[in-house]
Amino acid sequence: MPINVFFAAGAESWPDYQVPLSNAFAEAGLDATLSDSAPDPASVDYLIFSPTRGTFDFSPYRNCKAVLSLWAGVERIVTNPTLTQPLCRMVDRELTEGMVEYVVGHVLRHHLGMDTHIRGQDGVWRHAALPPIARQRRVVILGMGALGSAAGQALAALNFPVTGWSRTQKTIPGITCLWGEDGLRAALGRADILVTLLPSTPETESLLNGARLGLMPRGSVIINPGRGPLIDDDALLAALDSGQIGHATLDVFRIEPLPPEHPYWGHPNVTVTPHIAADTRAGSAAKVVAENIRRSEAGEPLLYLVDRARGY
Amino acid sequence: MPINVFFAAGAESWPDYQVPLSNAFAEAGLDATLSDSAPDPASVDYLIFSPTRGTFDFSPYRNCKAVLSLWAGVERIVTNPTLTQPLCRMVDRELTEGMVEYVVGHVLRHHLGMDTHIRGQDGVWRHAALPPIARQRRVVILGMGALGSAAGQALAALNFPVTGWSRTQKTIPGITCLWGEDGLRAALGRADILVTLLPSTPETESLLNGARLGLMPRGSVIINPGRGPLIDDDALLAALDSGQIGHATLDVFRIEPLPPEHPYWGHPNVTVTPHIAADTRAGSAAKVVAENIRRSEAGEPLLYLVDRARGY
Repeated sequence: MPINVFFAAGAESWPDYQVPLSNAFAEAGLDATLSDSAPDPASVDYLIFSPTRGTFDFSPYRNCKAVLSLWAGVERIVTNPTLTQPLCRMVDRELTEGMVEYVVGHVLRHHLGMDTHIRGQDGVWRHAALPPIARQRRVVILGMGALGSAAGQALAALNFPVTGWSRTQKTIPGITCLWGEDGLRAALGRADILVTLLPSTPETESLLNGARLGLMPRGSVIINPGRGPLIDDDALLAALDSGQIGHATLDVFRIEPLPPEHPYWGHPNVTVTPHIAADTRAGSAAKVVAENIRRSEAGEPLLYLVDRARGY
Repeated sequence: MPINVFFAAGAESWPDYQVPLSNAFAEAGLDATLSDSAPDPASVDYLIFSPTRGTFDFSPYRNCKAVLSLWAGVERIVTNPTLTQPLCRMVDRELTEGMVEYVVGHVLRHHLGMDTHIRGQDGVWRHAALPPIARQRRVVILGMGALGSAAGQALAALNFPVTGWSRTQKTIPGITCLWGEDGLRAALGRADILVTLLPSTPETESLLNGARLGLMPRGSVIINPGRGPLIDDDALLAALDSGQIGHATLDVFRIEPLPPEHPYWGHPNVTVTPHIAADTRAGSAAKVVAENIRRSEAGEPLLYLVDRARGY
């Protein structure tokens, strides 16, 4: 009997995923039926999910062996009380690569002071003192998961001294690893450029508040491609106005799309990017989903299984 | 008797170099006197030179064992008919690193389409189709010397498929190497982003002319941190106006500073940077100069000796 897979992600993504998923199932040797509608919830073996689906009741899917998220961030899924099935995050090579490219690109943009030249094509030859080279520019990354450690290693390869902070102790080649509350204070104190790549959990809510922004070197730069709630927006705007923070490049927000009247849009020292740092790409994400179904059917452990207690 | 070193670089750089050079000589164990004026040219053992010195007659320095350039590019020195002494280019680790940072930064800027977001902070959430990842963006570097190969390897480490072109055949790990006229045509045909890092010689004068710009994929990007004369400026402006070239980021020009009335300044698809991609830094450059004097005094071969026939 074929494996019954229900595509319960946002309807707008079904055209992008239908063919890549079918191909990935075939390549993985799975005899599976794939549908974006489920006549009998009890018949569903696997659920493919993303929060763009909207409100969702997982309880009728009582024979579902795993919920496979198309998103890396699962904070909008783990808080659903009807979800009791095993939940897997998306960890996609292309998503990781896209994130590394965004982080390295924007770190270099700020390091090189590119905006002056991109904006200032006014005929004035602004040859000022030499900027520091990467060896002299300290980058700190909050969050040393798959994305943070990959971005940190790419920056270290370009000679940036990289400090990575995480909740618990880690060891990552080429990166100075700090952890815990004392480690956070030390990390912020050396953050010429700060990159936030933590998951959104009750513990990380407004992690960057006024007090912590005050620990950073004056005029430092924040790049947030992680999650909007990591930042206390009012505190960041105050720190930008006072000059404590020199610039913020923000890709994620508490409300998306960021409303047109939000003060971030008009702030001269803020760059808004529209949640583009890392997006799941159908081709490679479909392979990850297929591999997890294959593992489950073969009795092997699932990849990227979410720890509900930690929330990611 | 102490070694007599004459600092014949631009007068404005003497304050930057005096202490670093003295320190580097001491560290290299050299008994040397350093002066920015030469009472008796025949007494000079080594000349430290940069073209900002202006017109210079090397012929009275008949006992000078080497002319040590503070610049990587020597096209304004090799054409001086009075220069008969051995000439060494500057190859400086920090200069190379600065160049790699500029090239990788601007390649990522164009790859990620950053300018739209840097310029367009107008409240419009522009979430368009996903851009390609680096694996899908072909970068071509013209010139596989110390700078070109270092930049190419850094880009390859970020997964960009990199093609390097040079006059003669080379083999560089991680880079597809092409050479000669046929290789140049093939390289240009795959250049989604083209980086020009060739030396300025009679052979490379206007290498990027209208015909060669026409070989590139439509809408491709040019980044020139190498030398101004590599580009036929009128041909580039025509290619930008027709859309054949999508954007040009230019750091070097036939006349510097670029005159305020030059059409590059006002062109919406040109970014001018004021010759900042790679600059000699006094601390590390002084060490290179000291090492070459030490080698010369010890009868060892000079580093970075210029081949006058090639011009670099």
